[in-house]
Amino acid sequence: MHFTRPLAKLIEEFQKFPGVGPKSAQRMAFHILSLSSENVHGLASAIVDAKDRVKHCSRCFHYSAQDPCEICASDRRDRHTICVVAEPRDLIALERTREYKGSYHVLTGLISPMEGKGPEQLSIRELIHRVDSEEVKEVILAISPTVEGDATVLYLNHLLKPLGIKVTRIAFGLPVGGDLEYADDVTLSRAMEGRREI
Amino acid sequence: MHFTRPLAKLIEEFQKFPGVGPKSAQRMAFHILSLSSENVHGLASAIVDAKDRVKHCSRCFHYSAQDPCEICASDRRDRHTICVVAEPRDLIALERTREYKGSYHVLTGLISPMEGKGPEQLSIRELIHRVDSEEVKEVILAISPTVEGDATVLYLNHLLKPLGIKVTRIAFGLPVGGDLEYADDVTLSRAMEGRREI
Repeated sequence: MHFTRPLAKLIEEFQKFPGVGPKSAQRMAFHILSLSSENVHGLASAIVDAKDRVKHCSRCFHYSAQDPCEICASDRRDRHTICVVAEPRDLIALERTREYKGSYHVLTGLISPMEGKGPEQLSIRELIHRVDSEEVKEVILAISPTVEGDATVLYLNHLLKPLGIKVTRIAFGLPVGGDLEYADDVTLSRAMEGRREI
Repeated sequence: MHFTRPLAKLIEEFQKFPGVGPKSAQRMAFHILSLSSENVHGLASAIVDAKDRVKHCSRCFHYSAQDPCEICASDRRDRHTICVVAEPRDLIALERTREYKGSYHVLTGLISPMEGKGPEQLSIRELIHRVDSEEVKEVILAISPTVEGDATVLYLNHLLKPLGIKVTRIAFGLPVGGDLEYADDVTLSRAMEGRREI
């Protein structure tokens, strides 16, 4: 036993973080000990505060401390377009581009029979309800081209198409700055498939 | 502004950790939100608890929740040998080898004029006092071969030698499993210097 009890406990807690191994956990714990008592209490209350106050927006299911969330409550957002993403982190990535001005819908996951996750565990019913009641004109599926992503897109398209709205999916192809020679086969096939007249 | 207030605050707190950038901080914050409320409170109290309870051992200056620390209090440790290290993490690394059975002394840093750190900011006076009062036979300097490390070793040797005890420094050379061809010049010089009869 190398660590004194409270330190060992803290290292153990940090090791539960994604991508944090024993060495990083130890470094994080030593960082805590090097902080002032005030800063440590600040960190602890930021953790508890985030957990207690941040919930899902009841309309788009994004993380938010208010309901509806900042994006849903904004009147500068186009409510006729809904961009559907799997997770809040995908929404954050799209927001970073500052290009999209519509609203969002977070599915809180993807259909994955392997993980026992079916459509009823996602916020799909709520999405259909929004499309029905909010005069939506276009639903953009910003969902990754993985097995689970493709299955979810198929399922959503099947439900959304009969509602008479435009359903689109974001483009897949060569990343900007990417080299054709080093692109994998599937990406190249998708890029050919998605070709556009110039 | 992409993140709701309490979440942005938490991400900001995590970014202060060593080696944690914006992406990792975001992943850590999302991990917090995915935990149960009980686990989050457990983590927060582990943080506060470690900070409040872990102090420096008054004898060897290692992190400890008790005073003297577990190592100083153990009667299976040889008190006639003191291994001097710069930081608690160095002590941890040595303890992991399970080879050394003596006691330790943590300097809490190295002499570094560049950072304005002089001998009086380290626990050097306490080390000399221990050597004087505890019948110490050998002091092992387990200090890295950096500019600061070498300066600290010179300074300590100057103080310790007149006390009539054996002062040694850990060996530097090729790491086990290391390839001579790829070793840097300084390491090779040190390895030659430290050669031993076989």
